[in-house]
Amino acid sequence: MLIKKILRQALEEDLGRGDVTSDAIVPRDSVGKASFISKSTGVLAGLPMAQQVLCLVDPNIVFTPLKQDGDRVHKGDVIATVTGNARSILAGERVALNLLQRLSGIATATQEAVEAAKPFNATITDTRKTTPGLRALEKYAVRVGGGKNHRFGLDDGVLIKDNHIEIAGSVEKAVKLAQERVGHMVRVEVEVENLAQVREAVAAEADVIMLDNMDPGTMSEAVDIIKGRAIVEASGGITPKQVSLVAATGVDVISLGWVTHSALPLDISLELQAH
Amino acid sequence: MLIKKILRQALEEDLGRGDVTSDAIVPRDSVGKASFISKSTGVLAGLPMAQQVLCLVDPNIVFTPLKQDGDRVHKGDVIATVTGNARSILAGERVALNLLQRLSGIATATQEAVEAAKPFNATITDTRKTTPGLRALEKYAVRVGGGKNHRFGLDDGVLIKDNHIEIAGSVEKAVKLAQERVGHMVRVEVEVENLAQVREAVAAEADVIMLDNMDPGTMSEAVDIIKGRAIVEASGGITPKQVSLVAATGVDVISLGWVTHSALPLDISLELQAH
Amino acid sequence: MLIKKILRQALEEDLGRGDVTSDAIVPRDSVGKASFISKSTGVLAGLPMAQQVLCLVDPNIVFTPLKQDGDRVHKGDVIATVTGNARSILAGERVALNLLQRLSGIATATQEAVEAAKPFNATITDTRKTTPGLRALEKYAVRVGGGKNHRFGLDDGVLIKDNHIEIAGSVEKAVKLAQERVGHMVRVEVEVENLAQVREAVAAEADVIMLDNMDPGTMSEAVDIIKGRAIVEASGGITPKQVSLVAATGVDVISLGWVTHSALPLDISLELQAH
Amino acid sequence: MLIKKILRQALEEDLGRGDVTSDAIVPRDSVGKASFISKSTGVLAGLPMAQQVLCLVDPNIVFTPLKQDGDRVHKGDVIATVTGNARSILAGERVALNLLQRLSGIATATQEAVEAAKPFNATITDTRKTTPGLRALEKYAVRVGGGKNHRFGLDDGVLIKDNHIEIAGSVEKAVKLAQERVGHMVRVEVEVENLAQVREAVAAEADVIMLDNMDPGTMSEAVDIIKGRAIVEASGGITPKQVSLVAATGVDVISLGWVTHSALPLDISLELQAH
Amino acid sequence: MLIKKILRQALEEDLGRGDVTSDAIVPRDSVGKASFISKSTGVLAGLPMAQQVLCLVDPNIVFTPLKQDGDRVHKGDVIATVTGNARSILAGERVALNLLQRLSGIATATQEAVEAAKPFNATITDTRKTTPGLRALEKYAVRVGGGKNHRFGLDDGVLIKDNHIEIAGSVEKAVKLAQERVGHMVRVEVEVENLAQVREAVAAEADVIMLDNMDPGTMSEAVDIIKGRAIVEASGGITPKQVSLVAATGVDVISLGWVTHSALPLDISLELQAH
Amino acid sequence: MLIKKILRQALEEDLGRGDVTSDAIVPRDSVGKASFISKSTGVLAGLPMAQQVLCLVDPNIVFTPLKQDGDRVHKGDVIATVTGNARSILAGERVALNLLQRLSGIATATQEAVEAAKPFNATITDTRKTTPGLRALEKYAVRVGGGKNHRFGLDDGVLIKDNHIEIAGSVEKAVKLAQERVGHMVRVEVEVENLAQVREAVAAEADVIMLDNMDPGTMSEAVDIIKGRAIVEASGGITPKQVSLVAATGVDVISLGWVTHSALPLDISLELQAH
Repeated sequence: MLIKKILRQALEEDLGRGDVTSDAIVPRDSVGKASFISKSTGVLAGLPMAQQVLCLVDPNIVFTPLKQDGDRVHKGDVIATVTGNARSILAGERVALNLLQRLSGIATATQEAVEAAKPFNATITDTRKTTPGLRALEKYAVRVGGGKNHRFGLDDGVLIKDNHIEIAGSVEKAVKLAQERVGHMVRVEVEVENLAQVREAVAAEADVIMLDNMDPGTMSEAVDIIKGRAIVEASGGITPKQVSLVAATGVDVISLGWVTHSALPLDISLELQAH
Repeated sequence: MLIKKILRQALEEDLGRGDVTSDAIVPRDSVGKASFISKSTGVLAGLPMAQQVLCLVDPNIVFTPLKQDGDRVHKGDVIATVTGNARSILAGERVALNLLQRLSGIATATQEAVEAAKPFNATITDTRKTTPGLRALEKYAVRVGGGKNHRFGLDDGVLIKDNHIEIAGSVEKAVKLAQERVGHMVRVEVEVENLAQVREAVAAEADVIMLDNMDPGTMSEAVDIIKGRAIVEASGGITPKQVSLVAATGVDVISLGWVTHSALPLDISLELQAH
Repeated sequence: MLIKKILRQALEEDLGRGDVTSDAIVPRDSVGKASFISKSTGVLAGLPMAQQVLCLVDPNIVFTPLKQDGDRVHKGDVIATVTGNARSILAGERVALNLLQRLSGIATATQEAVEAAKPFNATITDTRKTTPGLRALEKYAVRVGGGKNHRFGLDDGVLIKDNHIEIAGSVEKAVKLAQERVGHMVRVEVEVENLAQVREAVAAEADVIMLDNMDPGTMSEAVDIIKGRAIVEASGGITPKQVSLVAATGVDVISLGWVTHSALPLDISLELQAH
Repeated sequence: MLIKKILRQALEEDLGRGDVTSDAIVPRDSVGKASFISKSTGVLAGLPMAQQVLCLVDPNIVFTPLKQDGDRVHKGDVIATVTGNARSILAGERVALNLLQRLSGIATATQEAVEAAKPFNATITDTRKTTPGLRALEKYAVRVGGGKNHRFGLDDGVLIKDNHIEIAGSVEKAVKLAQERVGHMVRVEVEVENLAQVREAVAAEADVIMLDNMDPGTMSEAVDIIKGRAIVEASGGITPKQVSLVAATGVDVISLGWVTHSALPLDISLELQAH
Repeated sequence: MLIKKILRQALEEDLGRGDVTSDAIVPRDSVGKASFISKSTGVLAGLPMAQQVLCLVDPNIVFTPLKQDGDRVHKGDVIATVTGNARSILAGERVALNLLQRLSGIATATQEAVEAAKPFNATITDTRKTTPGLRALEKYAVRVGGGKNHRFGLDDGVLIKDNHIEIAGSVEKAVKLAQERVGHMVRVEVEVENLAQVREAVAAEADVIMLDNMDPGTMSEAVDIIKGRAIVEASGGITPKQVSLVAATGVDVISLGWVTHSALPLDISLELQAH
Repeated sequence: MLIKKILRQALEEDLGRGDVTSDAIVPRDSVGKASFISKSTGVLAGLPMAQQVLCLVDPNIVFTPLKQDGDRVHKGDVIATVTGNARSILAGERVALNLLQRLSGIATATQEAVEAAKPFNATITDTRKTTPGLRALEKYAVRVGGGKNHRFGLDDGVLIKDNHIEIAGSVEKAVKLAQERVGHMVRVEVEVENLAQVREAVAAEADVIMLDNMDPGTMSEAVDIIKGRAIVEASGGITPKQVSLVAATGVDVISLGWVTHSALPLDISLELQAH
């Protein structure tokens, strides 16, 4: 239901008071057949959302997927075909493509990172550095690319950052305050910047320790100190190209804002034959 | 009011049922001072929206801009300072940054294109290839970068594309149908793919002719054919690096999807001192 | 989608917490057949909306149109028949009728103006003097009556009025400011009150010049001055009866607030046979 | 809160993505002073709503009423003055005027009917024949004009119409079914078409009997039959001009759809001085 | 439509960003069959709402009621069966049960009160002491249990309380003010605390007199004083156990906040077989 | 923002189209002073929400709390005073009281359970058996009473129930599927019904094991088997009276639906002096 609302708003944004051009030129009952075609290589994500966009415009549109989310697509591949009222297809085209291209771009970048981390058994996750309003979809694309999701928002997990530590007075005090507040279903993660803080976090029994912007050498030392007593996450400006180096330090989880804020869209087009 | 709604939804997305971490650690009446700081060079855009985000979280936050939208910022520049309840600042931080980084990235890319087009008196515009849900903000960032806006959605302008032409039967028929339908305030634009269609469009008295994916040589010929009888727009996969070459053909307008779907975010951070 | 929202709110307004009377008296599964019948002569508009209202109440209602929007109807004509759950028909009746009567009234008045303007090749348009909340529907009714739509709102066209001119300093300055701001798809219209301003507007290359509240003689002079260098619109308290006189001056467009704020509703009733 | 929502939607309808013209021409911090001025004679209604519209656009606007709802205004009367940001005043102008003109038109028509009924001690009420979406405001305008409100919607009162009677089998059965269903706070009204039905309605102990489309002679007979055992309402296509004749029959209440669907707007304008 | 909105929000509250557990464990196309089973004895209410909840999650779910609202159910009774996608059933389970248990609890308590009042011909009604947001559903459950509804909110009836009387100056003044304001469809009720006020209320021709927190002896006296000239309602902290005693005093109506704020839920469970 | 929306809807539900009674009787500018007074003993919860309700009605109301959430209140205690427009106070009264009474009832019941569990170091949590639409508020009241919150909805934690286990094939398979799906911030809980399942859950490395409807003896055995390798939760129809017995078995967490679905409201009233 959440996603349907996002898609409806995207349509309302593009359609506004109606598609003036198609209303003028396309006969009301004109039928069209269209194909979503990949123009380059990547991981497909967002096909069910593209389908739902067209279905929101017109429930009578027939959408036939030939690929599915998670598939690797190449230039020229037909991803799906669409048959139905030509005005309806044209009305939903741009929103469907904008979504499909962006989400496939995210899945493609994520998969690159996941592949790089695999030999080291490290997990790739996203962050909250997503596009305002599209987080549910972008986190879905990360999963399609083989990544896992970090917490969705400020409400479903505790992540203690430098500002919280400064306010609380110490890593330990911050972790304790969090443990007192939350129920037994929530893990407490704390962000640390040096090895002294790593030791504090272990002592405070944090469930997860995030190594923020550390160089690989320091990360390795941190992993040695923690010795499995907490889950270890590496974070801070990491790009897919750097994942391999970071993963080699032995961290359990690597989180990348890059996959949601800097991944390029995958080029996909819609070609229509009306009759 | 439209933008306020977008910002409120972005906050709701991130806050969900509340900021568990800050609720646990930051005292209810803790006061903080924070600074938005640029980490690289670019054109600032989105500062009023960042301010409004923080104001939506807490109307008592004092936001003091030191730069304004359209300013060129460099690494280390303080963009704005924020003073107020520390919980409130932390609650709005991520949404404010996500917006500011994305919009400044768009303005930066747009300005690059605008500078390249300037010697040829060509105008840079955006397209409808924007992020679903953020169009109003992204088109604003294009204006901040010195570009102009193409139509906002399907409802506020006529843009006849290949599919419409195929359905209507010819460029001329499509243009005539559109002219009959719309009022006297709306310009009719038609997308053409070759010089024959250019001539048809001129004959049909289209107000604007879009040269779609033409090479510079053909574009020059088209400009010669049109001879000022219509506004000429170049479009189709153009990047900021290619703008200069395209502008040299004499077209009036160059539209780029690139500035909204492929521009990298500008790196900006928020640093907080609580007390 | 926009119109569906208007219709749903109209239903919510009338139904509130439910139709107490029908719940008490009409058996849950009672089936009815009803007919929309015209009680006077005019141009029908709003039938698809009446259908959608009933469909929103109950998707199983069968609505059979016997006339269509734009048809001239006379006293006693059956416009459409409705078959389905009697409670559902009664629940949607008043909203459907209120819409149908108002929109048909607007279409009827518009057609009268269009007929009067036809011998002079002038176009009839509406204004923004519509009923708050119903603009999309009322502008639709104007099109059904043969008129064209002026801009929908403040956002999809530039119309420079006396207040803007005063603030800018002159007609020319105001037109220039607007031309700099808007993209190439938007026409710039300026409202003028005398012949000096007409000349200024022509010099500033305004796309459309609105002659505000001028007498026919002055309008004729203005048309002569403009000589086809801009589209000419007449406006200001014009009633359908006066259209002929105005059109004879040679203006291209005549806009009437009258058709949306003063047209009388067309009398239409719904007659139900339940069984 | 209900009315605020209606006003906000009316503003969103008119503003859409923003006032392009004023953004281009009016400096951001330009201050203006404007006056609402009556152009003809009538009863003022809707001034608090006009004020709220402007306040929704910009809470810093200062609105000073010189008249109040219910006052009789004449050509040239200054109704209110407005001081504040010129862009804000221009953004809210049209919606404020559209409301004020329509509501004052309704109040004016209602007052005419109320005056005609006064010598006979009859009450004037409205109906559900209101503009979709504006019922709360239009019923308010009826009260300003001295009328009373009939039920607001289908949910806050029982009004048994011909269709209900036909389904129930008789006036008596319909009234009894309604009495069984509703609580002790709700009056039961039944619409009757002849004197036989009047007698049935009295026997069934209906609280209110509506004489539908009866001629004055029959109405008088009905009043005699009912003899105070129920409230008597006259209804059906009655115009303000006919009220006196109807009221003379002795009915208690006269309801007019006319005042909400056919009243002409009162001419009011806004004159701005910016500086 | 009102109820659908309540149900959708309840689902959104529970589902949030999606059912993580079922997404992980239940195959996308797994089909399940489930039964709603009563675990104790009471009056069923809310079955259509439980059905609608499941239908909102997934319109393809087949819901087969074996009992209907108003039926008395006993431990072990199968109330309804549900067949469909297993993920969908699990997603709607908790909301459906929470509603069904609460509404059945209200209907059960109401019926107890109704039975106690029946020998004395007194009517049982609810109050406005309902759960915020659920009033429409809770008042429905009261009707299912055989009770009637008092006014729904502050807008659909006049109930003059002690605070109003104090402000007006006397019972009589308050009643008169209300009679002047409201239309002919609305009854005026006044709350009184002693026999002097009862007499005042009769003199002022109040339609309904509410005896607030009186002992049975005083209530009997009040009934004698009123002698049928107004409807008499007893109110104030009455529990179902006390209804009989109150009804014996001869009052017409007894209103109980207890049935909506203190009734225990009826124990109902959903048992699923997936395959 | 979430809670504000709930409160606004509760007000809209009660106010509907406006408070007819107060509009008729209370002068527009009448000022009142009112006190919230406890009528019995319990733990106060919901005072900030009561304040916000009154503030939503009228931002000028002055609300002075004399107690705060979590305080134990007794019969006669003044909880807060309210000063402001009398119409506004009357308009918000019922919603404020309905919330305050319900939430205080929940906090009171929770505290009883918390006190009973304290000697055994067990934690009390709520469940998802909350009132549809009010979960955020009811979970807040549980925290006020000293309890902790279980997951908020289906989206913020994994809780594997009998149905999931049956579909997956075994406890172990279900736990493994969940571990693969979720990120590192989410704990995986599994509900078990017997000691064999307890052993399976330990072997599968579930983070939390819920003992569902077990008798105290079996619970003790389960605690012995688990030996600290997972958090142990007891659940299933536990009332506050039974908490002590359950806590003595050595479980870590006891969850009670009872505190949200069966707690009686705390009796609180609002007494107004208008002048």
